[in-house]
Amino acid sequence: MLENITGDVDFIENLRGKSATFILALSNTKTYEIEGITQAGIPGMIHLTPTLDSEFVTTGTVRSLVNIAETPKGVPTPALITRAVHLLHPFKNIQLLNLGLEVEPKVDYFKIYNFSIKPSDSIDKGANIDANAIFQKGLKFGQDYQCSDDYIILGESVPSGTTTATATAVALGYDCKDKFSSSFKDVPNNIRETTIQKALQNITKEDDLFAILSKVSDNMQIFVAGFILGLNNKIPLILAGGTQMASVLLIVNKILEVMQGELNTSNLALATTLWVVKDQNSDIKGLLELLDFNINSYNSDFSFDSSNHPALKLYDEGEAKEGVGAGAALVYGMLNGLTTEQITKQVESFLL
Amino acid sequence: MLENITGDVDFIENLRGKSATFILALSNTKTYEIEGITQAGIPGMIHLTPTLDSEFVTTGTVRSLVNIAETPKGVPTPALITRAVHLLHPFKNIQLLNLGLEVEPKVDYFKIYNFSIKPSDSIDKGANIDANAIFQKGLKFGQDYQCSDDYIILGESVPSGTTTATATAVALGYDCKDKFSSSFKDVPNNIRETTIQKALQNITKEDDLFAILSKVSDNMQIFVAGFILGLNNKIPLILAGGTQMASVLLIVNKILEVMQGELNTSNLALATTLWVVKDQNSDIKGLLELLDFNINSYNSDFSFDSSNHPALKLYDEGEAKEGVGAGAALVYGMLNGLTTEQITKQVESFLL
Repeated sequence: MLENITGDVDFIENLRGKSATFILALSNTKTYEIEGITQAGIPGMIHLTPTLDSEFVTTGTVRSLVNIAETPKGVPTPALITRAVHLLHPFKNIQLLNLGLEVEPKVDYFKIYNFSIKPSDSIDKGANIDANAIFQKGLKFGQDYQCSDDYIILGESVPSGTTTATATAVALGYDCKDKFSSSFKDVPNNIRETTIQKALQNITKEDDLFAILSKVSDNMQIFVAGFILGLNNKIPLILAGGTQMASVLLIVNKILEVMQGELNTSNLALATTLWVVKDQNSDIKGLLELLDFNINSYNSDFSFDSSNHPALKLYDEGEAKEGVGAGAALVYGMLNGLTTEQITKQVESFLL
Repeated sequence: MLENITGDVDFIENLRGKSATFILALSNTKTYEIEGITQAGIPGMIHLTPTLDSEFVTTGTVRSLVNIAETPKGVPTPALITRAVHLLHPFKNIQLLNLGLEVEPKVDYFKIYNFSIKPSDSIDKGANIDANAIFQKGLKFGQDYQCSDDYIILGESVPSGTTTATATAVALGYDCKDKFSSSFKDVPNNIRETTIQKALQNITKEDDLFAILSKVSDNMQIFVAGFILGLNNKIPLILAGGTQMASVLLIVNKILEVMQGELNTSNLALATTLWVVKDQNSDIKGLLELLDFNINSYNSDFSFDSSNHPALKLYDEGEAKEGVGAGAALVYGMLNGLTTEQITKQVESFLL
C-alpha cells in the first residue's frame, strides 16, 4: 500500500506501470571517520559502503570486499531491499553517479558518471568542498540529462550523510535540528551534536550560501540540488530518501530564495520508508513543510512484520531506516503490483 | 483463462506482455433519470457514476462523493475489477475522455481529453445530440491519436447505456432487441421497452443515419464509432465492453454500409466478461454475428466463485455484468499472468 506524506496521490498513481531509471548518487565524506557517528557499514570499512551498495544493487555481488556491508548488530544495508525489488520488478536502467568516492564500484555495462569530484573532508574540519563547482556540475548534468524511461528514481549512499544533512539545514537557517534522522536507533546525539556544533562554528558572517555549503554539507546534497534545478521539471523525478533528500530540497529552496527564482515542482516528489515516517527522532513531514514550494511525498507501508529473521526485525525496531533508495524502491514495487510478502521473501533469500 | 467468442485467439495472444493504454470514455445521458432504468450507481447520484468510476480507476479514491458507487443491493461498480487489475499489473497509461459529463473527474496528472460535448437528453425525449458533430470529433481524435503503448483498451462508463445501445441498434434496423443486456438481473423490460418504444417513435422516415443517432443514441457510442473509423486499424484496439460496444460496432457497420466504405478490422477486437457471455437475457455473440466484417472477441473465465463476499457473489448471480472496461481488464490481467485468485483478493481488499 502507498501512503501520502504531503501532497496527493495523483502524481504517483500516474506512474503505475511506467518504466523507471534508478540513479544512485554515491559519495564519501570523511565525517564518517568520527567514531560512533554512523553504523552504515562495516567497522573499519565504512568508506566502502557506497561502493559496495552500488555493486550489490547492480550485480547482486560485492566486488570491493568479501562480505556485504553489515552494521555492528547485524543489520544489513537497505541495498538488500532495493536489490530485492529490482529482482522482482526490475528498474529498466540503473546508473551510478560517482560524486567523490574513495573506491570506484567495479561494475561493467552499467553507466557510471564521473565528475572528477573528490571525497569531502569531515564537517568538523570544514569539509573543504568547492560547493559552487559541484553545484554547477549537478546543474549541467540535469540540463543535459536524457532519460530513456518514463521517470527517474534518485537514491543515495553516503555514510554519515544524515549528520551532514542536519548540519546543512541548520546552517542554512532552518529551525529543524530535531527534525532529522540518523541510521542509529539510539541516536548518538552527543557525538552528532558535537560534530554539528563544530561544523557550524566554522561559518562566518561573510559566508554566502555556497560558502556555507562548502563547509558543512556533502557532495551528494549539493550536486543533487543542482541536478533538480537543471532538470527543471522536464522528467518526473522521485527523490529516494528520507531526511537527507529533505535536506537537498531545503538547499534547493534556499537557492531559489537567494536567487529569487521559481521552480515548477509538479514533476518532483520524495519517497521514503515507513521507518522514516514513524521515526520518533525525526520529522520528515515537518521538514517538507518548511519548503516554500509544494512537494508530493510518499511512503509504502512495507515492514518486516511477517519475517522472523532477527536481522530484519531490527529494521522494524528502528535500527536502519533508509538508504540506497530503499523507500522509493518499495514504492516502485508497490506501484507495480509487488506484495510485502514477495519482497520480504526475496530479502530473506539474500541472508540464507 | 481466455475464451474466444468470435474469431480466433491469435490477435489476443500476440498482445501478451505488450503495454496497454487504457482509455475510459465517459458520458451522461439523461435517460438515467427514468426511474428504475439503471442500477449503475447510487440512487439520486447516478449521474456521478462515470465521474466516480474514473476517479477510482485512476487514483483509488473517489473525490466527487464520499462513498464509492454501490448499486441498491450492495453490488459495487465494475470499476473495482478494473482498478484491481491495474494495481496487480498496471496499464502503462490511463486516459479519460469527457464525452459530456455533468461533473468532471477531479484528478491531476492523468490526461483528460475534453471535446466540449454536453450530456445528452433522455432518449424518450429525443436525446438532442448533434450526432454528426460528435462523430466528426471522434473521427478526428482517432485520426490524430498517437499511442505511446503497443495497444489500446477502450472502456466506457455511461449510466443507462445498455438502454441507449438497444434503442440505437434497433433504430438502425438490426433485428436484435432481445440480444441486448442491462445492468439489472431481473431486466426491467417494461420500463426499458417503454423507453425504447418512445425513442423509436421520434424517428421519421426522412431521418438519415445521423438524424436517427441524434434521437436515440448516446455520446459515447457515436464518438467511439468515429474513433474506430478515424483510427483506421493503425493501432490494435480492444473495445472493452459487452452489448454497448457491440452496438458501437453496429453503428460502424451501418456507416460503412451507407457510405459504401470498407474497414480493415484485423487490429480491432472486443473483450467482455463471462457474465455477459452467459447472460440469458442477451446474446453478445449473436450481436457480433450481425456485423458484415469479421471481429475477434474474447472473454476471460473470471468469476467470483472463490469469494464468499456477498456483494461479489451477486456478480456471479448476474446482478452486474460489465462496465468500466472490467471484462477487457480481466482479459488484460490474464494475458499478463494474473490469476483469478489474485484478482479476487485484490477486489475483496477494497470492500474491507
